[in-house]
Amino acid sequence: MTKWAAMVEYDGREFVGWQSQQGLRSVQGCLETALAQVASHPISLRCAGRTDAGVHALAQMVHFETQAVRSPRGWMLGANTHLPSDISLQWVGPVAEDFDARFRAISRRYRYVILNAPARRATWHGRCLYEPRPLDARAMQQAARILQGQHDFSAFRGRDCQAKTPTKTVHRVALQRAGCWLMLDIEAGGFLHNMVRNIVGTLIEVGRGARPVEWVEEVLASRDRRAAGPTVAPGGLYFVAAQYPDEFALPPAPELRIPI
Amino acid sequence: MTKWAAMVEYDGREFVGWQSQQGLRSVQGCLETALAQVASHPISLRCAGRTDAGVHALAQMVHFETQAVRSPRGWMLGANTHLPSDISLQWVGPVAEDFDARFRAISRRYRYVILNAPARRATWHGRCLYEPRPLDARAMQQAARILQGQHDFSAFRGRDCQAKTPTKTVHRVALQRAGCWLMLDIEAGGFLHNMVRNIVGTLIEVGRGARPVEWVEEVLASRDRRAAGPTVAPGGLYFVAAQYPDEFALPPAPELRIPI
Repeated sequence: MTKWAAMVEYDGREFVGWQSQQGLRSVQGCLETALAQVASHPISLRCAGRTDAGVHALAQMVHFETQAVRSPRGWMLGANTHLPSDISLQWVGPVAEDFDARFRAISRRYRYVILNAPARRATWHGRCLYEPRPLDARAMQQAARILQGQHDFSAFRGRDCQAKTPTKTVHRVALQRAGCWLMLDIEAGGFLHNMVRNIVGTLIEVGRGARPVEWVEEVLASRDRRAAGPTVAPGGLYFVAAQYPDEFALPPAPELRIPI
Repeated sequence: MTKWAAMVEYDGREFVGWQSQQGLRSVQGCLETALAQVASHPISLRCAGRTDAGVHALAQMVHFETQAVRSPRGWMLGANTHLPSDISLQWVGPVAEDFDARFRAISRRYRYVILNAPARRATWHGRCLYEPRPLDARAMQQAARILQGQHDFSAFRGRDCQAKTPTKTVHRVALQRAGCWLMLDIEAGGFLHNMVRNIVGTLIEVGRGARPVEWVEEVLASRDRRAAGPTVAPGGLYFVAAQYPDEFALPPAPELRIPI
């Protein structure tokens, strides 16, 4: 048996999310089907971060085991031939036996993209949040910094969250503006369900002046989901990278363009 | 009657093209329907450059006449509410009576986007041409320069072209590489049907080393469509701007990001 890792890109719009669901179009289901065609036997995958319906990924990491002998290039090109147009493998390589896309990931990075302009953008439909009200990016950045570090993130935890603990460590969080685009970059050891989308909904309350920066401290301290802002749309959210120990020698995630 | 101009963005993937066709989903049809809802009477539109099925636009210019009294903002927000998600108005403003989006345009600009990488990109499906064979951008740029100026472009003319003359003037043409992205920018007084896509198909022959740079001179001189390269896919093509005389005081087209 050889263990393989693969870097996966997908446009989340037409999927029910990462996880396989009987009779529904999932990223995992499409990937397992395509890889099974290359391997000529069933393949089962684990990923770094399961994403919801409508959420995209630029460099989702997955791993699988197989007895089939193919070159890295053979896996990549073969899978890309069998995959639908909205999923692609960007890289495939053999990894050490103790690699695990989920359990060996040190951290995950997400980007959330907001279009802050009077008119929505047709070519960005389903790939950003359209917010026409003026947003104060500086206030949002100040508020975002409050979330850095280890906290109980219950206030930003989705109802269906199955995490064992609401305590997570946000290593880095930054909000930047580039013209009419606002981007929140957030890296954490792990995330609660809907955590990024609930954080963005909360920061927008600050950005549009409805709440002061310090309100985010109160929200965080409350541990009460009802205290935070709304859950924003999934289309603005991108899984951009997972980090692993250097020993696994995985390729770097692609550089992000502005706005994505 | 007031004459209005509007700048339109669309994702061409789900349209049969610009032009209205009975029972089919066209950009013109969707726009006229949405504007008629804002105006409360039928609206008929003319555009700067009719695009084919699958071709996108970032700043297509259109004009229409109406007796309905609405503010520029009212037109824009009203139309964007009624338009489907893959069309949006980016700007609307009143224009002089002698304005005409098609007949007063001095030139049109297109960009063609090529992804030149081993793996296709899921989030770019239908929005670029995926070409895994290595392309020599410098050779392509040299070949592209041959097309600058006034020429008989019959060799790059689509079969269904209804232009009166095959002679067109290419004001500017440039091919640039940014990482794995190749972009052809071309500005001309007007274009023959499929002209940009046939030019790109021809430049790719040079880029992949199948033909020398000088071959493009022969192709151009032949005036024979069969001498040129294939017509590349519509998804890589973007209508990016139309230029008009300064007297009309139209807003500039949006700046292009890399890769679009």
